[in-house]
Amino acid sequence: MNVSELSAEMRAEIIATADAAAEAAREITLRYFRGGALATESKQAVGFDPVTVADRGSEQAMRAVIEARRPDDGIVGEEFGPKAGTSGLTWVLDPIDGTRGFISGTPTWGVLIALRNADSVVYGVIDQPYIGERFVGGLGLSELTGPLGKSALAARRGVALDDAVIYTTFPEVGSETEGKAFHDLAGRCKLTRYGMDCYAYALLAAGQVDLVVEAGLQSYDILGPIGVIEAAGGIVTDWQGGPVLEGGRVLAAASKELHEAALAVLSTY
Amino acid sequence: MNVSELSAEMRAEIIATADAAAEAAREITLRYFRGGALATESKQAVGFDPVTVADRGSEQAMRAVIEARRPDDGIVGEEFGPKAGTSGLTWVLDPIDGTRGFISGTPTWGVLIALRNADSVVYGVIDQPYIGERFVGGLGLSELTGPLGKSALAARRGVALDDAVIYTTFPEVGSETEGKAFHDLAGRCKLTRYGMDCYAYALLAAGQVDLVVEAGLQSYDILGPIGVIEAAGGIVTDWQGGPVLEGGRVLAAASKELHEAALAVLSTY
Repeated sequence: MNVSELSAEMRAEIIATADAAAEAAREITLRYFRGGALATESKQAVGFDPVTVADRGSEQAMRAVIEARRPDDGIVGEEFGPKAGTSGLTWVLDPIDGTRGFISGTPTWGVLIALRNADSVVYGVIDQPYIGERFVGGLGLSELTGPLGKSALAARRGVALDDAVIYTTFPEVGSETEGKAFHDLAGRCKLTRYGMDCYAYALLAAGQVDLVVEAGLQSYDILGPIGVIEAAGGIVTDWQGGPVLEGGRVLAAASKELHEAALAVLSTY
Repeated sequence: MNVSELSAEMRAEIIATADAAAEAAREITLRYFRGGALATESKQAVGFDPVTVADRGSEQAMRAVIEARRPDDGIVGEEFGPKAGTSGLTWVLDPIDGTRGFISGTPTWGVLIALRNADSVVYGVIDQPYIGERFVGGLGLSELTGPLGKSALAARRGVALDDAVIYTTFPEVGSETEGKAFHDLAGRCKLTRYGMDCYAYALLAAGQVDLVVEAGLQSYDILGPIGVIEAAGGIVTDWQGGPVLEGGRVLAAASKELHEAALAVLSTY
């Protein structure tokens, strides 16, 4: 299924389905975030783990929305087995990206939703339910809806590597080699920051951050961000410059120049 | 001025003044956060630095509110010289705590407001303008007002050191010794996270995080958090267990037991 074959009506239906899935996930995740009412009630139950319950409930709620509205699409999620589809389009869901952020109360975890075909992301969503922020990209859209209203997303241009702001989630990054590669690159940037989970990709699309580098990602961790970032003019590849739809080592860059400069460092590892 | 001498009317006026100051700071900071309209307009101007302009504007706005409502109190801020008072009470202001978070778009910077006397914090505020979250503590209050409404703040009890969640803003922490001390302690905890600036203290008061350890802080960086955390039942001292009202090396703990366990490690450095 090529994106160019999608009618205006189909595009609108995809966008509405993604929004409805994000709303469903928001309702579930906020029941458990920061020890909401249900989490507190359930603390007596043996083996109760709020983040696991929220994760599974969030994915189930999204699957129910998608199956009802677009029964011919496939669905792949972090928590449950894949559902095959016949449309050539597959939804890829991460019901809570950044569970360590979630369990410590930070507002930097997210619900990730992507619609993909064989070789690209058609539409991507990064949703932060607590702040009430939704970053979307694809099908002609590139925008943020949040506490200050709606605004266009655009990755930042014209920043040289030594002026760049670089993010990763934790300083170890991944293997020892992956950590070395990251810090080699980060040492050439102006500012290195940690701890933002998927929110760092949203900030890149919003023109606030120039590079995000991570390793060991799953497909469902990166497809939503790819949709949002590509629509905002940024580039997401692996550390050799190839496609990263199946996860692994991820390099997200705000511009072609920064992408090349970062690849020149990372590809040697 | 002892807190016990404050009438109900004076307490209400202090709380209202802090709220009004936070509102004034919110309006200014959000004009510049993530390249708002004014920041974009001014990019042509030579030497224009949005975070400096926001920082100074935010402090000026807070000072104007406080001087109008409580002319006898002293004022100390990050950006301007101190104003002496006659009431025995001094407002201590950090107009944007976490400027590196601010310039990269994260919602984890904050406006810090504290009212202190000679030896304690009377009232503290950690305000996150973008999310619309205000954490307050003191004068009988300990609460969060945010996107999900109002809720009581209470630091978490009964967590052992090896189950604790520990935060600091950046992995280097401070000097080489300070970094070693932090990582010695963090290695004994369950989860270490970075990058939250003052927001980590707010999360400790909200029962989400167990320890926050930082070094090289100024008085205005920590007085707001002290007010919020102490009212929520937590403890904030230096690394020897002494008062930390003037800044320096900070240990914030959710409980007496965790505070003692963390001191046993940190005080050896």
